[in-house]
Amino acid sequence: MAADIAEQPAGYARLLETGPVAAIAEVAAAIAARRPRHVVFTARGTSDHAALYAAYLTEIRLGLPAGLASPSAITLFGARPDLSDALVVGVSQSGGSADLAEVLRVARAAGALTVAVTNAPSSPLAGIAELSVDVSAGHERAVAATKTYTAELLALLMLVEGVRAGDGVLPAAERAALDALPGLAERTLADRTPAQLAHRYRFAARLVTTGRGYAYPTAREAALKLMETSYLPALAFSGADLLHGPLAMTDPDVPVLAVVGSGPGGDSMREVLPRLGERGADVVTVGSADIAGATARLDVPEVDERYAPLLDILPLQQLALALALARGEDPDAPRGLKKVTTTL
Amino acid sequence: MAADIAEQPAGYARLLETGPVAAIAEVAAAIAARRPRHVVFTARGTSDHAALYAAYLTEIRLGLPAGLASPSAITLFGARPDLSDALVVGVSQSGGSADLAEVLRVARAAGALTVAVTNAPSSPLAGIAELSVDVSAGHERAVAATKTYTAELLALLMLVEGVRAGDGVLPAAERAALDALPGLAERTLADRTPAQLAHRYRFAARLVTTGRGYAYPTAREAALKLMETSYLPALAFSGADLLHGPLAMTDPDVPVLAVVGSGPGGDSMREVLPRLGERGADVVTVGSADIAGATARLDVPEVDERYAPLLDILPLQQLALALALARGEDPDAPRGLKKVTTTL
Repeated sequence: MAADIAEQPAGYARLLETGPVAAIAEVAAAIAARRPRHVVFTARGTSDHAALYAAYLTEIRLGLPAGLASPSAITLFGARPDLSDALVVGVSQSGGSADLAEVLRVARAAGALTVAVTNAPSSPLAGIAELSVDVSAGHERAVAATKTYTAELLALLMLVEGVRAGDGVLPAAERAALDALPGLAERTLADRTPAQLAHRYRFAARLVTTGRGYAYPTAREAALKLMETSYLPALAFSGADLLHGPLAMTDPDVPVLAVVGSGPGGDSMREVLPRLGERGADVVTVGSADIAGATARLDVPEVDERYAPLLDILPLQQLALALALARGEDPDAPRGLKKVTTTL
Repeated sequence: MAADIAEQPAGYARLLETGPVAAIAEVAAAIAARRPRHVVFTARGTSDHAALYAAYLTEIRLGLPAGLASPSAITLFGARPDLSDALVVGVSQSGGSADLAEVLRVARAAGALTVAVTNAPSSPLAGIAELSVDVSAGHERAVAATKTYTAELLALLMLVEGVRAGDGVLPAAERAALDALPGLAERTLADRTPAQLAHRYRFAARLVTTGRGYAYPTAREAALKLMETSYLPALAFSGADLLHGPLAMTDPDVPVLAVVGSGPGGDSMREVLPRLGERGADVVTVGSADIAGATARLDVPEVDERYAPLLDILPLQQLALALALARGEDPDAPRGLKKVTTTL
């Protein structure tokens, strides 16, 4: 898991090489030419969080309605939605989940433009979809997905920005921002704070993660990583939903990990944090600036919130790994888990 | 909270009276006449779970793609998706959430057909939407929503089935199935098992809820109710996602509440339960039939899975209430919560 985590800057650099850039641009141009009216993402587990990020990007950057599909409506209940105006995107590191393949098969038969985003270009999912994006992350050794997640994030970002450009070719400013990512990721991973924080959470009985907008998928993925590797119940909430029921649950003994970026999502979180303070919660933030009342901060470079998910998750992956080791667990072999799930 | 829970059979009966039936049929007929190409639901907290149920109904019963919108894309990041083909439905008991009102305002300006489903027909949300459905649940006394949730479920079911009929008028068989609900709900609430189970969970440190398809919103809502009233961390997973990371987290000391109905969703859950058994999990089911290996069962009458969410949640609400009392908490005044949240 440590090796997978460390490879992420190189993974970003690889996706930004001429070959992958051209391949994704071609898919993006094909999507733009078809002018879909709305976008449906379908994914499970970690890839579901990458899809959620892409749904925000789609709504904000493309002005297209986007949502996440529940595969079971199609696979179990026989729903046959009319998808003739839709772009349907399946996201899966293995490309081997039977339920996602079935959703894409049904969607393609219903007239949707279908795209598979996988780390396995010869997988069933990639074969079923009309178009396919290879996230080029290389073999992932650990069961808990890390480098395939961030490769999915970057590939989806490149895809969306390519569709926005129309011809698939990223504008120079966008390209420059992306080219900075490998170096920024390297810098983020060099920080030793996650290992120190792991000792702080050694005896925590549970944990809450939170973020808004682009940062919400990060909160969800961080919670899943903590559950997978440390068996620590971690509840992820959007900053807005936290003010509904779950706020009552936060206590001085429940640590909160809050992703607080620079932008509208982060600004909105700054309104939520004082409410957590009133409840005596122990808050650690992920961001580039200190927040009054927070106990500690996982430092990430300041970037536009649109790029932040590609950096914010890195110290949280390191935290999950360090916490698993501190608790005497084996993060490379989580009990009860398989790399590819097979539920229909 | 006990009084609100007890009023749910009467709430069903009230929504099935001539006036509300005609009002919902009128909205349904107007939707059918506009022939939306896809449906976007927007909601928060408990109402988000009613919206999720309606999204399954929309895909399965209407053959229309449906998804849940993240309000923050519009309210924080200025997304202006082209919603001219869309039906946008805001679900909120109070109709007072500023972010949902903003989503409906933007959607209506973008050409969407907008519908508010609320328990407050003179609320801002109902005023902003082109069409409005009153779920007629009456004043809800407790902060934790119970009777407004089930009233939203039934109103949304009536709305979807009315759109399916075309003229808004429910077919006789559908109407007969709905007319049975008040009696079935009464029978469900008469069972004393939830109060007994509360003692079983008195010292639980956490809890997992699970279900698939129509039962997944029930699992989510049960988890929220347990968190709101007992401050017990409750993690909800679809049966499929449970086989990803979260399975590693289940232990003999983590009780699992599994909603297992009669139909494809329940059949699929029956494949997941043995995996929980392998991990030594303590499984209690909600359903009409005993499942091998389960410790106990919250009994609900056998109905089509489409109607099951209107009954399955009842013993789970009772369990949340009884558990809060057993743990010495006041379910009528959960700490840190307000009835109407005001996040933008």
